[in-house]
Amino acid sequence: MGRKVFKTSGKQIRSKLSLISSSLKANKQNYKKRIALAAVIELLHSATLVHDDVIDESSIRRGQKSINNLWSNSHGVLIGDFIYSKAFILMVKIKNLKLLEELSFATNDISKGELIQLDAINNIKIKLDDLLKISYYKTGRLFEAAAKSAAYLIDSNLKYTKQISKSAKYIGIIFQIKDDLLDYQINEKKLGKPSFQDIKESKITYPFYFAYKNANIQQKKTLRSFLGNKSINKSKSYKLIDSLNGIVETKKLLNEHYKNANFYIKKLEDNKIRKEMLELLELAILRDK
Amino acid sequence: MGRKVFKTSGKQIRSKLSLISSSLKANKQNYKKRIALAAVIELLHSATLVHDDVIDESSIRRGQKSINNLWSNSHGVLIGDFIYSKAFILMVKIKNLKLLEELSFATNDISKGELIQLDAINNIKIKLDDLLKISYYKTGRLFEAAAKSAAYLIDSNLKYTKQISKSAKYIGIIFQIKDDLLDYQINEKKLGKPSFQDIKESKITYPFYFAYKNANIQQKKTLRSFLGNKSINKSKSYKLIDSLNGIVETKKLLNEHYKNANFYIKKLEDNKIRKEMLELLELAILRDK
Repeated sequence: MGRKVFKTSGKQIRSKLSLISSSLKANKQNYKKRIALAAVIELLHSATLVHDDVIDESSIRRGQKSINNLWSNSHGVLIGDFIYSKAFILMVKIKNLKLLEELSFATNDISKGELIQLDAINNIKIKLDDLLKISYYKTGRLFEAAAKSAAYLIDSNLKYTKQISKSAKYIGIIFQIKDDLLDYQINEKKLGKPSFQDIKESKITYPFYFAYKNANIQQKKTLRSFLGNKSINKSKSYKLIDSLNGIVETKKLLNEHYKNANFYIKKLEDNKIRKEMLELLELAILRDK
Repeated sequence: MGRKVFKTSGKQIRSKLSLISSSLKANKQNYKKRIALAAVIELLHSATLVHDDVIDESSIRRGQKSINNLWSNSHGVLIGDFIYSKAFILMVKIKNLKLLEELSFATNDISKGELIQLDAINNIKIKLDDLLKISYYKTGRLFEAAAKSAAYLIDSNLKYTKQISKSAKYIGIIFQIKDDLLDYQINEKKLGKPSFQDIKESKITYPFYFAYKNANIQQKKTLRSFLGNKSINKSKSYKLIDSLNGIVETKKLLNEHYKNANFYIKKLEDNKIRKEMLELLELAILRDK
């Protein structure tokens, strides 16, 4: 079972963030705990992915069959719970109450984000604020918690804790906006998973949101007809959304968050950490899958 | 949402166990933490119920519509996660690492029990040992953790911790065996929920297990035909299972565990706690819903 769940590893960007953040005061004594925390972060992420796939009825994850597809939705629910509780066991062993508090708040925020997203399905009246809230809770929050809990682990000062947490938070939001953008990619092979999933699942993300905002009555009607259409014509829908500035406005939003991330990363005093965070920022924004 | 989930409260036997266990050293200082822990236990239980209902595709819970029935399976998965993480937030606030460790192990064991049960569906070759493992992990484990974490909360001695935990564990297993027995009740009104659910879901529990063990080839064939039959004839199937000692052997098993529970409860030195634990034991074994 474990072999199936962890066969493909993903980008491990969250655990990297955790390790970078705790590297400020790396030493022999905290080595094992730093690694344990990075593993906890990756396990928490895996647990949410397994539950996500049940919710989205996804058949593919990281280029492989998803758990719910391989066995059943019931397995997806329970294996997600199992991984989550394993993460819980591991994090308690680190014996740091502030770290535990941060991770408990973060996991709650993540499920809040997923619930907001679920109720946003098919909701063409959704506001930009809600979309940003979803991006933060669903994705930015665990990036932030990865860095913040690692800062607590090494008992760093308030200033560093804030700078590294904010940097991580914005990298996470960028990661999610980019994810929404990549889903509008016509070339699936490059992406390694089916594209246009959001629109097929009636999920309104940034490109659709901006296009709809700029559309006339007739175009709005066409856009609405795309939602939930499993056999959507990708080129046709991309063309319309692109012509209504859905792609370019999403890229603009990405750029604004890039500035936010950059603002905090540039403040980091440690040269190595600043450099590594900038690299993660580039990875988040430039990745093509 | 919260109103729907917590509209009906259930028996709250697990939180009672926690409060009884921590009552050994109740004082003004630990009052709030004792209550918080009882709430955590009840939240953990609620989270597993919400996920259970998704897995079993149950439409009714505590006489009301279940979450998955009211909204969707996706809501069931996410609301379960939300409640679980709320429990996690609350338990971290108690600031007791031993308590956290026990609860982390328990939640992991619970999901293990659910997974074993899932893979036991339709498995007529299941062993009594597996059924007992399911009863312990799925139910006894949280009863045990409720008492044990409460004993850690008040920093009680090893002897008391062991006695109260073992007592709680066996009450939990009894609770589950009784639950399996009640599912074979023909009168649904008395039960407050649909009966014969286990057999309809191809779930092999004690009454079926014992009956099958005692059946001849023809009877075995008939018993197998009951599994997964949504329009099962309750009187007919009850009659066969009863005639093959399925009910009486389950009651015998119940009695053995009653002796185990009693053995540990009788050792408890505090009169009030011993009396309250005996009352819970009676409730677990005598309840008719």
